[in-house]
Amino acid sequence: VRTDRLEAFSDGVFAIAITLLVLEIKVPEGDDVWHELAGGWESYAAYVVSFLTIGIIWVNHHALYDRVVRVDRPQLFVNLLLLMWVALIPFPTGLVADHLSGDGAHAATAVYAAVLLAMAVAFSANWHRARRHGLVDESLSREQLRRLNVRESAGLGFYAAAVALAFVSPGVSLGVCFAIAAYYVLPERNEPRPTGGP
Amino acid sequence: VRTDRLEAFSDGVFAIAITLLVLEIKVPEGDDVWHELAGGWESYAAYVVSFLTIGIIWVNHHALYDRVVRVDRPQLFVNLLLLMWVALIPFPTGLVADHLSGDGAHAATAVYAAVLLAMAVAFSANWHRARRHGLVDESLSREQLRRLNVRESAGLGFYAAAVALAFVSPGVSLGVCFAIAAYYVLPERNEPRPTGGP
Amino acid sequence: VRTDRLEAFSDGVFAIAITLLVLEIKVPEGDDVWHELAGGWESYAAYVVSFLTIGIIWVNHHALYDRVVRVDRPQLFVNLLLLMWVALIPFPTGLVADHLSGDGAHAATAVYAAVLLAMAVAFSANWHRARRHGLVDESLSREQLRRLNVRESAGLGFYAAAVALAFVSPGVSLGVCFAIAAYYVLPERNEPRPTGGP
Amino acid sequence: VRTDRLEAFSDGVFAIAITLLVLEIKVPEGDDVWHELAGGWESYAAYVVSFLTIGIIWVNHHALYDRVVRVDRPQLFVNLLLLMWVALIPFPTGLVADHLSGDGAHAATAVYAAVLLAMAVAFSANWHRARRHGLVDESLSREQLRRLNVRESAGLGFYAAAVALAFVSPGVSLGVCFAIAAYYVLPERNEPRPTGGP
Repeated sequence: VRTDRLEAFSDGVFAIAITLLVLEIKVPEGDDVWHELAGGWESYAAYVVSFLTIGIIWVNHHALYDRVVRVDRPQLFVNLLLLMWVALIPFPTGLVADHLSGDGAHAATAVYAAVLLAMAVAFSANWHRARRHGLVDESLSREQLRRLNVRESAGLGFYAAAVALAFVSPGVSLGVCFAIAAYYVLPERNEPRPTGGP
Repeated sequence: VRTDRLEAFSDGVFAIAITLLVLEIKVPEGDDVWHELAGGWESYAAYVVSFLTIGIIWVNHHALYDRVVRVDRPQLFVNLLLLMWVALIPFPTGLVADHLSGDGAHAATAVYAAVLLAMAVAFSANWHRARRHGLVDESLSREQLRRLNVRESAGLGFYAAAVALAFVSPGVSLGVCFAIAAYYVLPERNEPRPTGGP
Repeated sequence: VRTDRLEAFSDGVFAIAITLLVLEIKVPEGDDVWHELAGGWESYAAYVVSFLTIGIIWVNHHALYDRVVRVDRPQLFVNLLLLMWVALIPFPTGLVADHLSGDGAHAATAVYAAVLLAMAVAFSANWHRARRHGLVDESLSREQLRRLNVRESAGLGFYAAAVALAFVSPGVSLGVCFAIAAYYVLPERNEPRPTGGP
Repeated sequence: VRTDRLEAFSDGVFAIAITLLVLEIKVPEGDDVWHELAGGWESYAAYVVSFLTIGIIWVNHHALYDRVVRVDRPQLFVNLLLLMWVALIPFPTGLVADHLSGDGAHAATAVYAAVLLAMAVAFSANWHRARRHGLVDESLSREQLRRLNVRESAGLGFYAAAVALAFVSPGVSLGVCFAIAAYYVLPERNEPRPTGGP
């Protein structure tokens, strides 16, 4: 199994998970459509946050595997664990969509943040395993590696905080999840410059 | 991230969104199947319009990115915003399918046209950002660029009109949406000639 | 847009449509699971027939486009019409799954056969348009072209018969649909020999 | 149809089937979200087991077809039968998710194991047909072929046992299914070393 195969399969899972999110937005069934549409704002917010989050993970997944020059069989399974959490995201998204403005808001956002925390742990594991097993581009300097080590694990503490915050304020917890995603919009320093297609 | 990666991921989202549309057509559950099938004509019409619309966006997305010779990281996110609206299309499609012949027809078609308007804004933003940041094929003449500027934004005013028309006549609004899609079936002038595969 | 792009997008739609079929099989909700499972035989039959039918269309779609050396923009849209019918197949499959052993069996199988008929018309149109517009491999002999003309349209009459037969005997109608698919398992004469990967 | 085409289509089906699994996890609708979430543990267990199982089949499917140097048309259909069982996995997963802790547990796990058994039969058939028809890499030694023959069929007996065990103890039956998947995490001896991408 080559690096491009792993990336193609991962791309497929990312593309499907991101597109399935729309199924968590319920179509109003009653006659007062405007009213029901307005009442569905949590599901639109959840759609936007989850869509951008998965999209940002996708971009960073590529940036990570651009640094990985080959994969071995165990790395495939470590990547599979990451995909397992990514593909799960439509579930907590539906949970937040249905419960953000009700009694279940604490539970829903705690589960949402916990799934993203688990995803971040798996993401970090992909980097650290690849590095420890010599699968990473050898031309990276010690300083670059150090910065990447920090970056690939930086989200962990914040996602853990988001889980805890869910029990205090669901809105703040979601805000933290969104801020973490926004942080990862930024490129790493020394990221390989994207190049033109074939 | 290379241009081909962006295109492959986008293709995946387009292919999934277009295929998920079928889930908005409800299978009749009662015994009088012919009667229920006949009553579902709005969902068939919505399926056809949305399928062709997404398909046409797909063709034009390729035509646009054939002119873009490389992408940078922000361009990935501008493209992600476009995909966010494309992947949302099954939702307003379901809305139209369920409410086109009821009291909610105005609301349903207004939301439908508004999602397409937002998509058109994002589409136009992809072109203009790429152009302003020098990601576009430099061999294009000033005249070609001018024509592309017009083309990539031509739908905006008409989609805005379709939103307004939804409050007057849902049928006319849908018709305008369909006419815009039909317009984009036409190739741009000077479009690079499609070539054979490898 | 190159031939390989059209094929990759089509492959995506085929793969998604074929995998969505499973959603038409309802999970039993009561406690007598064996009994409910046994009562779901129509949905298993419909799954198998539709899965193999879409799979066979996929194989033949590749065989067709292996003969097409380049595509123009209108050909993309003729192909899109074919995909529109392929992506619709989960709907009549659900219809047959729910109504094959009830009063709606005639309606369900008639719609099932009619969707396959429309797909066959679109398939045939892809071949004939490509041929009339000089997009087809020029090394094909007159005799080969004649045989392909017959093959790509052979299903039409039989699918039309299946629609008519649905009003007499739903079982026979489904059997004809299955027999047509089975016929297309056979290769065309002079089909280009499949070759190894890169 | 080339080997890479078969693999790309199969990858699509694997990626979609694995991502559709999340739809079998129901979002709690009542107000006591924590309680309902806790009551959904069967669906989480089923998600994890099925996700890893499909992921592992994916890895081994690639390992198998890396040994196959070309495919003929019948091989496409033998592969299609394998995909038919893989794409079905969300159905027995939903069955286990809904019935593992109820009266239907025996039925649900028996069906689950039976679908995996059918998948294993189809997987084994892919290998044996390819070998008998000379589609396999000719540089493999007699000893390597013998070991591959054993490996590609080793799961059959154990999956059959899992079906039988389902009538005694659903938990043990699921455990056996999981153990078989875990076995296939291990590489075959002499597996071609994964290499870097392009």
